[in-house]
Amino acid sequence: MEVQKEVQKNVISILVNNKPDVLARISGTFSGRGFNIESISANVTRDPAKTKIIITTIGDNATLARILKQIARLVDIIEVVDLTGREAVRREMFLARLNWSKEGNRKKVEALVENKNWKILSADDHTCIIEMTGENGALLEEVMMLEKLGLEDFTRTGVVALENGL
Amino acid sequence: MEVQKEVQKNVISILVNNKPDVLARISGTFSGRGFNIESISANVTRDPAKTKIIITTIGDNATLARILKQIARLVDIIEVVDLTGREAVRREMFLARLNWSKEGNRKKVEALVENKNWKILSADDHTCIIEMTGENGALLEEVMMLEKLGLEDFTRTGVVALENGL
Repeated sequence: MEVQKEVQKNVISILVNNKPDVLARISGTFSGRGFNIESISANVTRDPAKTKIIITTIGDNATLARILKQIARLVDIIEVVDLTGREAVRREMFLARLNWSKEGNRKKVEALVENKNWKILSADDHTCIIEMTGENGALLEEVMMLEKLGLEDFTRTGVVALENGL
Repeated sequence: MEVQKEVQKNVISILVNNKPDVLARISGTFSGRGFNIESISANVTRDPAKTKIIITTIGDNATLARILKQIARLVDIIEVVDLTGREAVRREMFLARLNWSKEGNRKKVEALVENKNWKILSADDHTCIIEMTGENGALLEEVMMLEKLGLEDFTRTGVVALENGL
C-alpha cells in the first residue's frame, strides 16, 4: 500500500446561505475547469441559515483565483476567503478501526494512543475505533503506520481551518 | 443567539473515484430534489484514486432512498452505504477561537479544556484556538456555552462515521 506524501494545499473558506443547490454550483464551478477538490468540509454555522464550506485543493494558483472570482459572483455566496497564506490553524480528524486481537497488539495500541493523546472511542476483544486529530500531512502518515497494528479501515474529515486572532 | 436542537440525522457514506465532477453530480442529485445536505466531509482514502464522502441529511426517508438509488447509478460511484441504522461511531470536530483577555477567563478556559479532554492548539495573551471533538449534537451545545468565555468564531468539520467491527 502506497502512501502519497501530501504537498501544501490551498485552503478556501466559503460562507454561503444554507440552500440545497449552493454546494452543487460551487463544486460545478471547480469541475467545470477540471479542477479537483482534495477535501471538503461543510456544515451549518452558529446561524443555522448559513453554511461554512472549507475546501482544500492542489493546483495552479491562477486557475484557482479565477474559480474563486466566479464563485464569489454566484447567488447565495456571502463570502469567499483564501486562507492559504494566512495565519490559521489547520486540523483534520481521522477515525481508524483496528483489529487488535493479535497477541500483544492491544497493549501497543493503548500505549500509542496514550502517547499521542488520541482517544479510544469504542473497544471490544477484537477491534477498537480510535480518534486521531492533527495536522493534515502528518496525520495521514501516522494512520498508515497503524498497518502493523491491525488497521482495518479509516475515515477522515475534510481539513478545517480557523484564523488566529489579530 | 439561538441554538437549534439538532435531531437525528441520516448518515450516508459514498465511495467514489477521485474525479473533479463527481461531487458536483452527487450534490446536484440532492439539490435536484430540493433535498438539503446538512453536512458533508469528503477526502481521499488510503487509495488516492478514491474519495470517501460522508453526508448527513435531515428529511423524508422515502425521498432520500430515491436519491441514493439515483446516485448509485451515476458514473464513478463505487459504493453507497446508508449508515443511519447501523452500529457506527459518529464524530465531529470543532475549532473555536476565544478571546480570553477578560480577567479570570484564561484560567476558566484552561480548566474546562482539561476537564473535557479538549486541546489548546494556539494561544497568546488575548486569544486561543481550542480543538473539541465529540458527538454531533452534544458538541454544538457545548461550543455555544463558550459564548460567556469570549467565543469569537468557530468552524466545524462535517460528521464522519465508521462502522464498528463485527
